[in-house]
Amino acid sequence: METVKILIDTKGSDKGPATVISGAAAALAKFPSLGVVLVGDAELLNAECEKLSMPSDRIEIVDAPGEITNYDNPAEALFNKTDSSMLRGLELLGERDDIFGMLTAGSTGVLLTGAIRYAPSKERTRPALAAVLPCSDGSFTCLVDTGATIDCTPAMLHHFALLGSDFMRRTYGIENPRIGLLSNGAEAGKGNKLVKETYPMLAEDDRLNFVGNVEGNVALTGICDVLVCDGFAGNQVLKVTEGTAARIITDIMKYAHREGLDEVKKLAYHLMGVYDISSLGGGVILGVGKPIIKTRGNAGESAIVNTAEMLLNMASNKSVFDKSRNKI
Amino acid sequence: METVKILIDTKGSDKGPATVISGAAAALAKFPSLGVVLVGDAELLNAECEKLSMPSDRIEIVDAPGEITNYDNPAEALFNKTDSSMLRGLELLGERDDIFGMLTAGSTGVLLTGAIRYAPSKERTRPALAAVLPCSDGSFTCLVDTGATIDCTPAMLHHFALLGSDFMRRTYGIENPRIGLLSNGAEAGKGNKLVKETYPMLAEDDRLNFVGNVEGNVALTGICDVLVCDGFAGNQVLKVTEGTAARIITDIMKYAHREGLDEVKKLAYHLMGVYDISSLGGGVILGVGKPIIKTRGNAGESAIVNTAEMLLNMASNKSVFDKSRNKI
Repeated sequence: METVKILIDTKGSDKGPATVISGAAAALAKFPSLGVVLVGDAELLNAECEKLSMPSDRIEIVDAPGEITNYDNPAEALFNKTDSSMLRGLELLGERDDIFGMLTAGSTGVLLTGAIRYAPSKERTRPALAAVLPCSDGSFTCLVDTGATIDCTPAMLHHFALLGSDFMRRTYGIENPRIGLLSNGAEAGKGNKLVKETYPMLAEDDRLNFVGNVEGNVALTGICDVLVCDGFAGNQVLKVTEGTAARIITDIMKYAHREGLDEVKKLAYHLMGVYDISSLGGGVILGVGKPIIKTRGNAGESAIVNTAEMLLNMASNKSVFDKSRNKI
Repeated sequence: METVKILIDTKGSDKGPATVISGAAAALAKFPSLGVVLVGDAELLNAECEKLSMPSDRIEIVDAPGEITNYDNPAEALFNKTDSSMLRGLELLGERDDIFGMLTAGSTGVLLTGAIRYAPSKERTRPALAAVLPCSDGSFTCLVDTGATIDCTPAMLHHFALLGSDFMRRTYGIENPRIGLLSNGAEAGKGNKLVKETYPMLAEDDRLNFVGNVEGNVALTGICDVLVCDGFAGNQVLKVTEGTAARIITDIMKYAHREGLDEVKKLAYHLMGVYDISSLGGGVILGVGKPIIKTRGNAGESAIVNTAEMLLNMASNKSVFDKSRNKI
């Protein structure tokens, strides 16, 4: 069995390196074909790996004492924090052919500028941050952009559509991904200035299977394979979905406790699994030279395991997620 | 008991005038202090009122044979469709002191331009379409704008904040309403260009109790009394909330049917009531001379009753909704 080596930035998570390392240990135990390059504080990494009895033949440790925080200015960090685990990791990713991809929980801003510097696409295009979200019909929709570029031009949205289409074709095996444009009405002609100007660009591009405007209430019904929007709107779709789900699940738990209904509690736990967007593996950076996945800042062990699986599946070109996962 | 007279546009609803009239009948039965001016096809209105044995002393019928559709251009309709129930209704609202407010399910675009023409505020400012949404802590947040103005300037958002603040003070009795600005991060400095430019205008205005940026996942937790955004973003918040709630409730119903759990079905029906945003009474037009409420195009009887109640409460300056309604 050929080993797929992925690089893990062990810093940058709100939960500390120990959580990331134990996530890596769980991933190694689950996937025999996985190898990891752990980047961070070597002394700590060695001690943790020993404590967890991790398989030393599938682990490589790289020392990078510096750390990127959310307060770092991306442009400045790029020059002043080259000893950080994230930038050292990106550098290795760009240099070494034996490393397939990378995962990190660190600052999105630094990650994007760092990826452009160390692991750019051949065309050196602007990267986008996508999220692959489970839909009510059991399929998945790739939402792009989810917050990497907050103010966008029509040309950027056009580019996001091409990146998303390519990603869903290659990773999910969808031959002709349906592209939707997030808007405030389904009819052509609805939208803000940005959407109105983007619409004809998507409609006229023969490489894209454009299906028109998509409204927020049907965004995650499986109506399209790629949903294109600016990073501000994408952030709202992601966070409003999450907030609404969390709220309803809390309501259900309260009801279950009050009425003493164990069956309802089971339902609530199931829904938590389906709607816990962060555990699904995090955002994918599109438009760079190698697969890079950004987990949430508060990613726990399961997020690390899911992200590792996502990268393994990308490497073998299989569907990223188990399609039965989000069916109730 | 003094009668509060409200005007009801009986056309424009997807469900037809009969549904609107039977909603009016239900409202008259429920609220003894309510009087209605029904505007529409007089022949039909007379026949329906007789059929439903509605109290003739609290009903006035005004004939307006024309109808506004969603395909009407707002500017053209204003001059060519003055015989429509909506524009005739707005004209009466502006002319007659004995009519307190109006409700309609018709075209938002025509309603906004018509309101500016026939029932403007003294300052003749740009109106906004607000929605008062139930929060997880039992309070309500006024989301403004929800789609009347899709492309906004910072000055417009500033104006929306003032309108929302005034509305929540007068209608909900909140002394110093907390104003939030929808953004993609809670920290000052996060946001798109529009949000970044609006932030200092809200922060520096002594009339506003500005509490900063608010993210989508906490938008409806009661973190602020007024949530300000452009109409495109507001439309996303509204529709993504609705879509997510509908999806989870469908999941719960499927589970209840499969497992044969009646208790879970009851829970699903309860959640439907809480998260059925359209039944809560629809959007409020702020910045006009008199209260005007726009119900959803597919508004049923309960939406008409709730909207009539909202107007009655505005007239008596009581809290608009029963605060226990959205508690589980």
